[in-house]
Amino acid sequence: MPNYVGSLQPVVRQMASDRLNKIQSQLIFNESGLVPVITQQHDTGEVLMLAWMNKEAIQETLETGRVCYWSRSRASLWRKGETSGHTQKLIELRIDCDGDSLLALVDQIGPACHTHRRSCFYKAIRADTAVVISDPIV
Amino acid sequence: MPNYVGSLQPVVRQMASDRLNKIQSQLIFNESGLVPVITQQHDTGEVLMLAWMNKEAIQETLETGRVCYWSRSRASLWRKGETSGHTQKLIELRIDCDGDSLLALVDQIGPACHTHRRSCFYKAIRADTAVVISDPIV
Repeated sequence: MPNYVGSLQPVVRQMASDRLNKIQSQLIFNESGLVPVITQQHDTGEVLMLAWMNKEAIQETLETGRVCYWSRSRASLWRKGETSGHTQKLIELRIDCDGDSLLALVDQIGPACHTHRRSCFYKAIRADTAVVISDPIV
Repeated sequence: MPNYVGSLQPVVRQMASDRLNKIQSQLIFNESGLVPVITQQHDTGEVLMLAWMNKEAIQETLETGRVCYWSRSRASLWRKGETSGHTQKLIELRIDCDGDSLLALVDQIGPACHTHRRSCFYKAIRADTAVVISDPIV
């Protein structure tokens, strides 16, 4: 039996289409078919990033347990960590009151940010100036 | 001297326009002139809501220290808590790596959600079904 823990090609657990449709029907997608997703480290509470999902990305995320976004710049599915190894294991996906945004609680391997910082939110406005408040971790 | 702590009309501390412009120039607003804002309780780490700001809302938030959004449904400034009293005191505003989303660390009075729950993210997908995981607090 292959060990898929940590693999980038985890076992896909196919969701019943009626359940998936029911979840997706609770969401309001924007004119591009996307919904914003806040990604938070599940145990520390750190907000790591904000990205976007379409229906296909939501399905893949729920079925694989690995977070998959929709890249607006590349116009394609973005399997987080596919090339960097900095994957996000899905702990829980939450929906807000209006159904127009998601909160993904994850276990982030390494940095979430492409600048190699843990969080993408590394600039803070202090004394009316934006200052860098964290360093790359790798 | 009036005590403005807790007031809905806090003293406005006008920012120098060059500093405000410099901060706003680091942001990428969408085609509607908006940027998404994640709001997080500063001490517990709880993600409370996701909303939107335009340039005017950012300026008011920074100058008053009270979080002000742009309401897309009402197409007007949305001074959070203006009618409910459930205001958000700004602790710090952060900018992400791409400059296209914000993280507001706040001190939330009462519930953030219009359903009177602390957080808007009160539905979780568990066993392929969306379930309510928190109750109204008031």
